[in-house]
Amino acid sequence: MQLKKSDFSEWYNTITKEAELCDLRYGIKGFIVFRPWAVMSMNRMYAMYEDAVESRGHVPALFPALIPEEYLTRESDHVKGFVPEVFWVTHAGGAKLEEKYAMRPTSETAMYPLYALWIHGTRDLPLKIYQRCQVWRHETKATKPFIRSREFHWIEAHDCFATREGAMGQVREDMEMAEQVIHGQFAVPFLFFRRPQWDKFAGAEDTYAADTLMPDGRALQLPSTHMLGQHFSKAFGIKYTDDKGKEEYVWQTCYGPCISRIYAAVIATHGDDKGLVLPVRLAPVQVVIVPIIKEETRERVLQACREVANAIGCCFVTRIDDSDRTPGFKFNEWEMKGVPLRVEIGMRDIESGTVVVARRDTGEKIKVKTAELDAKLGEIAQSIDKNIKEKADKWFSDKLSFADSMGELGKKLDMHGFVRVPFCSDGMDGEKCADIVKEKHQANMRGSLFGAPEKPEGKKCIACGNPATVYLYAARQY
Amino acid sequence: MQLKKSDFSEWYNTITKEAELCDLRYGIKGFIVFRPWAVMSMNRMYAMYEDAVESRGHVPALFPALIPEEYLTRESDHVKGFVPEVFWVTHAGGAKLEEKYAMRPTSETAMYPLYALWIHGTRDLPLKIYQRCQVWRHETKATKPFIRSREFHWIEAHDCFATREGAMGQVREDMEMAEQVIHGQFAVPFLFFRRPQWDKFAGAEDTYAADTLMPDGRALQLPSTHMLGQHFSKAFGIKYTDDKGKEEYVWQTCYGPCISRIYAAVIATHGDDKGLVLPVRLAPVQVVIVPIIKEETRERVLQACREVANAIGCCFVTRIDDSDRTPGFKFNEWEMKGVPLRVEIGMRDIESGTVVVARRDTGEKIKVKTAELDAKLGEIAQSIDKNIKEKADKWFSDKLSFADSMGELGKKLDMHGFVRVPFCSDGMDGEKCADIVKEKHQANMRGSLFGAPEKPEGKKCIACGNPATVYLYAARQY
Repeated sequence: MQLKKSDFSEWYNTITKEAELCDLRYGIKGFIVFRPWAVMSMNRMYAMYEDAVESRGHVPALFPALIPEEYLTRESDHVKGFVPEVFWVTHAGGAKLEEKYAMRPTSETAMYPLYALWIHGTRDLPLKIYQRCQVWRHETKATKPFIRSREFHWIEAHDCFATREGAMGQVREDMEMAEQVIHGQFAVPFLFFRRPQWDKFAGAEDTYAADTLMPDGRALQLPSTHMLGQHFSKAFGIKYTDDKGKEEYVWQTCYGPCISRIYAAVIATHGDDKGLVLPVRLAPVQVVIVPIIKEETRERVLQACREVANAIGCCFVTRIDDSDRTPGFKFNEWEMKGVPLRVEIGMRDIESGTVVVARRDTGEKIKVKTAELDAKLGEIAQSIDKNIKEKADKWFSDKLSFADSMGELGKKLDMHGFVRVPFCSDGMDGEKCADIVKEKHQANMRGSLFGAPEKPEGKKCIACGNPATVYLYAARQY
Repeated sequence: MQLKKSDFSEWYNTITKEAELCDLRYGIKGFIVFRPWAVMSMNRMYAMYEDAVESRGHVPALFPALIPEEYLTRESDHVKGFVPEVFWVTHAGGAKLEEKYAMRPTSETAMYPLYALWIHGTRDLPLKIYQRCQVWRHETKATKPFIRSREFHWIEAHDCFATREGAMGQVREDMEMAEQVIHGQFAVPFLFFRRPQWDKFAGAEDTYAADTLMPDGRALQLPSTHMLGQHFSKAFGIKYTDDKGKEEYVWQTCYGPCISRIYAAVIATHGDDKGLVLPVRLAPVQVVIVPIIKEETRERVLQACREVANAIGCCFVTRIDDSDRTPGFKFNEWEMKGVPLRVEIGMRDIESGTVVVARRDTGEKIKVKTAELDAKLGEIAQSIDKNIKEKADKWFSDKLSFADSMGELGKKLDMHGFVRVPFCSDGMDGEKCADIVKEKHQANMRGSLFGAPEKPEGKKCIACGNPATVYLYAARQY
């Protein structure tokens, strides 16, 4: 197996197969099998994200996977956005159902009819509920494992507030949570954009989406948080009686961190020509111990390995590879699978009271006294997490550029990821100019950078030449 | 709300609604919404069961929720068992699919085609994979929340071995795991029966199922573990090459702890006339602090509550109920929701440096020095868990009885849960006798008690009068 990350698409397809992250041979197009090595990391990611969601006042619930057609079609924009890609259940056993059911493409319309029954007064607000689940969409775009498939695994949080300000506060909290978890813990950098009106979530007032970049400079959307306003609360009758006895519709937000896709970003951001590189906290095995064995010293070396495993087992998920393959084979195998730390133990090490520690991120080999191994591994693990985060951040910061004309945009897109350009509008008016950019450069307008006060002064829209009112960021995308 | 556990069915319906465990008003028959108070406990149950599964060498994976018709129908007994209750997906977007897909009623046929690709030699065995997921069955029996619905939440483990002995070892491990988790941690007692041949899992050689009893003496099936033999490995071509180079089919087991149903058993086993009683480790809130407030002392009492909450927050999930309801209302509310420990704090307590602790299981109130609260709560929590387990075990042990004739069986069934009777056969021959018992007493033959060496000597089958070959246990069921 030859891996070259510079040929990203090929690298990605190879590593997801060779590291046994998924299997594409399942009998339904666009449905993949998530294999243990991936799921063990994804479960750690789920645990960290669910902690973050719960510590901010959300409680978990579980809503049905099937949605009656009548629920799904109550909000008109939502219908247009999702119905074209819904899987429909029409039969049960041998019989045709009276009403057909949609497999949830997202859960707004499963949850909000119940919200209308649960919310009565200000005492019931804010209501902050999330569920961990999978969703199904009959995508017509090309699928790519973890990045886009017809079944994916996510968390979705759906919150209700008495006021618009309350809902906007939640949007900011959702973004801050993405920063803490995805950037802080998974070391994947991104930017939050307010999407142009023509590219928002079906049924939302505004969509704020985190975009990261793949190694080939193309953007990948990570979690988005949506200001739903009162669109859904009016369609589903979610009302509360305020302190003066007046009925009001609630203000809503929803938020969808897609764990399977964020995992794709972890693979793509940190991996190298040898394979996966995983943050220590996400690695299914954190330390692999490789015995360097000659037949006559076999038992003594294995015994030393077991002692080391016991000593560090409290702090690290540890595995001894005592299979009958060569040390070189094992080194390659576990490096390819992204195990952050390797400990090599042979007779010479036992005699000198040391072991060799190899770190996956830099390849550096360090001789460590066995008695100090536990503490030393802790230090090296911290150093690995710091190093891969800094490396990712540095690469990402270099991918932002600027252009003032269509020609310049094309050149910059070839070298960078996001290119800021002056644009006539991010309202529906601007869509035709976005189409021109797409046609010319195969790039999308990702929106305005959230929190950036920048305003184009005296500039012209790169597509229509009218006065620019906003800076938008263009990128090619997945 | 009036709760009388002696009228169990009414009690169960009321408590699942009033404690906000579920909502039955979702728009699809047999599909319920699992509300936060239930899901918080179920998530703790999932975590404990997944720990138990993983610590015994299973790794997690995620297989698609949809199964191609061609996969589902490869094993002939399995087809007969499950196809009559499958939900079928026939359309996507506006178009009819070329092949219809089943929503998984269980995952054998989704997983085993991949197992056939993954297993080559003895190095790949045993293969022990589980997934946490939901399954769907269009039940025709009456549904009851958590006990039987058309969508439920479980763990399923699917294991492959080189030998029959390896597989039987797994069946025993699965039973031991149920003992550790469901009895040891959730304090729900049960017995393992080997099901009669006419009542085994569709496609299995043998089914071993844990049955508990509801307060009305009716049996509820908890996890079952199935010895699949080589039925599926032959149907799906799951083979390995043994050390002599010969191809052999693997031996398989599967195991399905249904978390939503085990949660029903927790509710039913421990609850009382005041509502839920939860083991401390499963309670979403373990300690509720109720301030006893007069208006003029409000701030001082709340401050004392916050100090106590901080002091015990490291060890217990704690909530201060500072709402504007009366203490009596709050006591009833949190007792109904099963919170194991209540701490009451008023001005008199502050002045005497004590608090009042009330335990949910016995209602006992205990005066505790504030400085010793942390340690004392730990002791009381242990005592609660011990007490509810002993109480459940005692009740359960009294529910086992014996009968030697059809008439006696009827009387014993009215007073007990499981009644052991001599029977002609637990092979397919015995089914017509089981039908007679069912007709006469509305009771099912649950099977032979696993591990019991008991043999009927010189007794006659209670139904046909032929010589008895086996003791079977009868029970009415859910």
